[in-house]
Amino acid sequence: MDRSRSWWGWGTTDAALSDDECRGLAGMLPGLAAEPVPVPRIADLGLRAPRIEAPSSLADRCSTDPADRAGHTYGKAYRDVIRSLRGDLPHPPDLVARPRDEQDVVDLLDWASSTRTAVVPYGGGSSVVGGVEYRGDEHPAVMSLDLGLMNEVLEVDEVSQAARIQAGALGPALEAQLREHNLTLRHYPQSFEFSTLGGWLATRSGGHFATVETHIDDLTESIRAVTPSGVYASWRLPGSGAGPSPDRLLLGSEGTLGVITEAWMRVRPRPSQRASASVVFGDLFSALDALRELTQSGLRPANCRVLDEGEAQLAGAGNGEQSVLVLGFESSGVPVDHDLADALELAASHGGVASAPASRGGRDASADAWRSAFLRMPYVRDGLARVSAVSDTFETAMTWERVPDLIADVRAVMPAAITDACGTPGRLNCRVTHAYPDGCAPYFSVIAAARPGEELETWDALKVVASEILQRHDATITHHHAVGRDHRPWYDDQRPDPFAAVLGAAKRELDPAGVLNPGVLIG
Amino acid sequence: MDRSRSWWGWGTTDAALSDDECRGLAGMLPGLAAEPVPVPRIADLGLRAPRIEAPSSLADRCSTDPADRAGHTYGKAYRDVIRSLRGDLPHPPDLVARPRDEQDVVDLLDWASSTRTAVVPYGGGSSVVGGVEYRGDEHPAVMSLDLGLMNEVLEVDEVSQAARIQAGALGPALEAQLREHNLTLRHYPQSFEFSTLGGWLATRSGGHFATVETHIDDLTESIRAVTPSGVYASWRLPGSGAGPSPDRLLLGSEGTLGVITEAWMRVRPRPSQRASASVVFGDLFSALDALRELTQSGLRPANCRVLDEGEAQLAGAGNGEQSVLVLGFESSGVPVDHDLADALELAASHGGVASAPASRGGRDASADAWRSAFLRMPYVRDGLARVSAVSDTFETAMTWERVPDLIADVRAVMPAAITDACGTPGRLNCRVTHAYPDGCAPYFSVIAAARPGEELETWDALKVVASEILQRHDATITHHHAVGRDHRPWYDDQRPDPFAAVLGAAKRELDPAGVLNPGVLIG
Repeated sequence: MDRSRSWWGWGTTDAALSDDECRGLAGMLPGLAAEPVPVPRIADLGLRAPRIEAPSSLADRCSTDPADRAGHTYGKAYRDVIRSLRGDLPHPPDLVARPRDEQDVVDLLDWASSTRTAVVPYGGGSSVVGGVEYRGDEHPAVMSLDLGLMNEVLEVDEVSQAARIQAGALGPALEAQLREHNLTLRHYPQSFEFSTLGGWLATRSGGHFATVETHIDDLTESIRAVTPSGVYASWRLPGSGAGPSPDRLLLGSEGTLGVITEAWMRVRPRPSQRASASVVFGDLFSALDALRELTQSGLRPANCRVLDEGEAQLAGAGNGEQSVLVLGFESSGVPVDHDLADALELAASHGGVASAPASRGGRDASADAWRSAFLRMPYVRDGLARVSAVSDTFETAMTWERVPDLIADVRAVMPAAITDACGTPGRLNCRVTHAYPDGCAPYFSVIAAARPGEELETWDALKVVASEILQRHDATITHHHAVGRDHRPWYDDQRPDPFAAVLGAAKRELDPAGVLNPGVLIG
Repeated sequence: MDRSRSWWGWGTTDAALSDDECRGLAGMLPGLAAEPVPVPRIADLGLRAPRIEAPSSLADRCSTDPADRAGHTYGKAYRDVIRSLRGDLPHPPDLVARPRDEQDVVDLLDWASSTRTAVVPYGGGSSVVGGVEYRGDEHPAVMSLDLGLMNEVLEVDEVSQAARIQAGALGPALEAQLREHNLTLRHYPQSFEFSTLGGWLATRSGGHFATVETHIDDLTESIRAVTPSGVYASWRLPGSGAGPSPDRLLLGSEGTLGVITEAWMRVRPRPSQRASASVVFGDLFSALDALRELTQSGLRPANCRVLDEGEAQLAGAGNGEQSVLVLGFESSGVPVDHDLADALELAASHGGVASAPASRGGRDASADAWRSAFLRMPYVRDGLARVSAVSDTFETAMTWERVPDLIADVRAVMPAAITDACGTPGRLNCRVTHAYPDGCAPYFSVIAAARPGEELETWDALKVVASEILQRHDATITHHHAVGRDHRPWYDDQRPDPFAAVLGAAKRELDPAGVLNPGVLIG
């Protein structure tokens, strides 16, 4: 275990909020605890003793260190943080394996299949949907398979602008290696610092680009994965019409069909042309109308995020009564100023007023500030959790014609549900993170003061209310947070039944012992 | 059977080349037959008697008319035309079923499963890869399932710019219905007039857009299909990260897993802004360098087709020593003139000289002329077939760094192979139909004079030579012509083995009786 990584919360221990900072947060909402709950010491967790021993040939790849096991018990959802703070870790992995190459992965899966040891593939461990957490007791032992040592950019093709990258590379590590070639993958989920390429691929992560190449899927040229039944490797192709796409079955498979070991990814020169602006609207729905027309007009901004009144205020971009559209165009070649001008003209026709001067070329300071606040949010979330706050999000995507009703319904139902559950009102904000010609991806944040000791139960109840609203509006249970174990009830209802049957059949074919990430997606 | 449709060749009978026009083609190449072979009469084909009778409840949906059966025996590949001209139809479908609604499809599949009747889903029947032709004798009977009566645009969502369209709608029919809403799907494969939405989806057809939304996949919002195990219907979503995409399993499934009955497709307003130009280069490789930089620069032209020296000459766009880049930008909203200007500047830096004045707005006459010649090509192909020519194509896609070697290899090997096979030299041309930041889709045309009576064998031998070149260069066996039965040997080698196992498992799950398009993709 990298000792600087937090076993219980987001990111690195040195970036966690201090007790004093947590006390500062307590003033944010009435009802929060004045004093932060302490973080348990690993030695006090009383982790269950490992129930299995790795075979000697693999022993030096495997750890039973309590810090490793505690740090690999959960992902990084709000509910994971709460359970960790409570010292509630009844099902830690019995061992944490760290393969150094593909053959290690093959050997570890062989051993796991023969012993029916459950295997939980683990990239950066930043799942917020219970994706890296073993639940249940059907397997005699559990192994967390941490790809972190397989973190190299193995090959760069500068002509075709593609790179072969190992699955365990964290965002900053792969970007640093690509930078030597003046290239970038340009995929920046909020978890960027603490999530891996393999995790992004397995969960269809949503990234930097707000239009067109929204998901990692679109940046993928080919994938290589180890399944218990053999290596699954697609050809490097820019496009193909030969049968259903083999890559698209692995994308989103969340570790249930195989362990992704590497991929050829589409990369690009670092942008040399940039133009950005913020546009203020009188209300959220005018901003959304502008966003819709913008995506339908043929404009394809890299960034086009809409913040509702509360969200804009939190971000320091509005007075609490304005909605804001943040727009950014970029390119590594052709100029983008005229794109921004076209977009601003269109936004103006919906009543939008450009508030920030459009920056031309070079880095944009306000975008940098926003990005830094964005990356800081999960640490704040952890601090809030320590003062008994509920602080979590839910996100979706849906076609445009249903978006206003969904948002209205969320705004009508959730605040009352929050007050009911917590006894005091909370905050509910909305932003739109990605946009398409036929729809967009609304993202909601909830901050409320739970009754101390009831944080988990309160959020679980609110999550049910939220998910049922999504379901009523035919909105996906997740646009880019994945399914994991937490979204299963709604996911199962949303996918076609025959497709569920196919996934089950695929599982039996590729993972006949049923050891890969049990409980996720299938069965 | 629509009596105006040709049972043996492309399109409509009234558009077929006359005997005199065929005689005119004979001058194109030395060695062609002076006199066209006659087209057999259906009555003279001696079709095998139907071996099965539809149940009375479905009888009025089913035809055993010899014209129907002859017209549904093959697709429209060169080798299909040759076999039809020879009167070589040993395995016609026993009946042609035309469902009127989804329930008919359910009933027909139920009956087929219970009688082990092979079902060959049939849209417009324009497959060029043996995709709609039953081969073998493992099934007691064969039914061609023609979706042609299910051809309506059922619903239009003008807000989200999407339309629910039945699978059997031919290109012109669905565009005519969308035009009433001033919308367009804008998917124009060469087969546009004689292929259906369902066929496009099942084969991952490649269309109008040369960049970004190259395949029909990218225009698809959700799909509904009937499988023998139940209805497979995905939700309408602009994007989702919930598990592997259910749609992507049906896209490219070529009728083996289910019969697509309808889909929600992304549509758009008809373009109001257009700008286009042709750019002449001294050779093909300079044009390809320009094309690569163009796609990597962030420009996203709707059209960017490269014609090699011979192809440009045939199209009347070059003198036989020049390669041509055809460029077109379009939008229904923002202006595109600056995009064209950026592209022309970039092309000029690679030595390209803009030969046609850039047209701004409105229809482009030269594009119309090209489109009309493009749609006429398959009729000419049929005329050539009647004077004993080999006239066919092969196409692929691959990453940029290998494109020059592939083209050089094809140019080195194919002409000699053609002369060997035919006794006289033929023509080999190349164009690039679609382009990506990481690669492109080269498309090769062969015209040669076969020894009369040896047309089929000659092309089959040349196709093997061509496919083995693709295989050597790690180039896909098909970018947008699909796999069908003809590409199986190479396709089987190119897909990941575990994915083949999954497709087999999916087939057993969804089509347990194994009746759907046997021999295609699976088994």
